[in-house]
Amino acid sequence: MKVEHQNEAATGPQMCRTIEVAPPPPPPAFAHRHLPPPPPEKVVAAVPAAVEDRDREGDDLFIPPLNFAMVDNGIFRSGFPDSANFSFLQTLGLRSIICLCPEPYPETNMEFLKSNGIRLFQFGIEGYKYIDLLPSAQMDSSCSSYAPACVLPEPFVNIPEDTIREALKVVLDVRNHPVLIHCKRGKHRTGCLVGCIRKLQRWCLSSVFDEYQRFAAAKARVSDQRFMELFDVSSLKHQPMSFSCSKKYNN
Amino acid sequence: MKVEHQNEAATGPQMCRTIEVAPPPPPPAFAHRHLPPPPPEKVVAAVPAAVEDRDREGDDLFIPPLNFAMVDNGIFRSGFPDSANFSFLQTLGLRSIICLCPEPYPETNMEFLKSNGIRLFQFGIEGYKYIDLLPSAQMDSSCSSYAPACVLPEPFVNIPEDTIREALKVVLDVRNHPVLIHCKRGKHRTGCLVGCIRKLQRWCLSSVFDEYQRFAAAKARVSDQRFMELFDVSSLKHQPMSFSCSKKYNN
Repeated sequence: MKVEHQNEAATGPQMCRTIEVAPPPPPPAFAHRHLPPPPPEKVVAAVPAAVEDRDREGDDLFIPPLNFAMVDNGIFRSGFPDSANFSFLQTLGLRSIICLCPEPYPETNMEFLKSNGIRLFQFGIEGYKYIDLLPSAQMDSSCSSYAPACVLPEPFVNIPEDTIREALKVVLDVRNHPVLIHCKRGKHRTGCLVGCIRKLQRWCLSSVFDEYQRFAAAKARVSDQRFMELFDVSSLKHQPMSFSCSKKYNN
Repeated sequence: MKVEHQNEAATGPQMCRTIEVAPPPPPPAFAHRHLPPPPPEKVVAAVPAAVEDRDREGDDLFIPPLNFAMVDNGIFRSGFPDSANFSFLQTLGLRSIICLCPEPYPETNMEFLKSNGIRLFQFGIEGYKYIDLLPSAQMDSSCSSYAPACVLPEPFVNIPEDTIREALKVVLDVRNHPVLIHCKRGKHRTGCLVGCIRKLQRWCLSSVFDEYQRFAAAKARVSDQRFMELFDVSSLKHQPMSFSCSKKYNN
C-alpha cells in the first residue's frame, strides 16, 4: 500500500513528503544488533560457523553509498544511494530514510524501500547555489538570520531553517531508527542537518565545522557553516535524545 | 590498583601493553543508552525537564578529540585525547581505549582512565615515516607483503601487520565495548586499523580508501592503502561481529 500525505508537523506546504511504501517493520532491527555481553571466558559466535562462512566468503563485497558514515546510535549519513548500494543498506536494517533532495525519489529506490519496509521522509531542499539579490527587508522568515546576500563573500545558499528543524524532529524520534540521512553528495544539506544534531549534542562549533569540512572537503561553504552557527537548538532541548552524548543514558 | 602485564595473545614482546587502572565498570553503559521504543503516540523524555535543562544549557560545550568519529556500534576513533576532551569522552561511557602510539601514556590521561574505570590497550606503532633501504630478502616477516621500499614511490611506512591483527582482536571483542581507537592524529595508524575493520565488514576497497582519505586528507599515504589492500582478513573470519554490516543481527 502506498500512502502519501503531508507531515502533520509541517508548517508549510510540501515541507515534508512522507511516503510509506509498506507497513513499518515490526522488530526494532537496530536494537537487536547490540548483543548482550558474551560469557566472560570466551566470545562465541551467535550463528553456526557454516552460516558465517556463507555470509563472509565469496566476492560479494558491500558498496556503501558515497560519503557513508555513522553519525551516532541509529543514525547514518551518506550521498544518494543507488542500486549498487542496496545490499549494503540492507545490512543496516533501516527503518527510515530522510532524503533532503526535492526531486521525485527514483523508482528503483522506491522499490527497494517497499521490499525492505523502509519509510521515506522527503524534505525538499534545493542543492544548487544561487545569489539572492533581494534586500534584507524582502527576505522571507526562513532567511531572517542571514545578512543580505549582496554583502556575503560567496553565493548565498538557501538552507531553509524550518525544513531542517522538521527533519531534525524525525531524526530525534527513535521510532524512526535506524535512519539514513542523505542528499545528493552527502556534503552540504546532509552536513548542515548533522551539524545541527551536533549542536544539540553540545559539540563546540569548531568540532561541528571540522566534521562538516571532512565531508565537504574542497566544496565546504562558509554559508553552510554560518547556518549551523546561527541555528538555535533551544526550542528542541526537550526532545529526548538517544545520542552517545546524552548524559542521561550513562547514569 | 595498577596492573601491567603482557597480553597473552601477543606474539612478540611489547606488542601490546595492557594496563588496568581500575576494576572494569560493572554496567554496560553503552547498551544502556539504547532506549526501548517509546510509546507509539508520543515520544517522551526519560528524565525530568529540570535535569534536562541543567544538562544542556549553559556554556559547557563538549570538545571531541581531533578527528573524532563513530566507526560502528560501540567503536569510536580519534586523534590523541587531551584533558579538554575528557568531559566529552565521559559521555561515551567507554570501557576501553586502544592507543596505537608507542610513547608512555600521559599521566593526566592515566588519571582519567583510572577515575572512569577505562582499560588501556597500548599497541606501540611508530608514527613517523622512514625509508627502509634493506633488500627484500632481509625484511622481516611482518613486511613480507611489501615490495622493497627502494622501489616504492614514497617513503615506506611500517604498519606492522601482526600488531594490527592483535589490536583487531581487542576491537572485535564486545566485552571491550564501547572502545575508542586513537593514535596521534587519528589519520594513519587509526585509519589503517579502521580500514581492516571495514575489510572484515566486507566493504569494497574503494570505500575503505574513501573513508581513510576523509580523515588523512592531504596526508594520505599510498603505503597505508597498500597495507589495507594486502591485509588478509580470512583468519579472522570466525570472530563474532556486532557490526551493523553483520547480517546475522538483522535476522
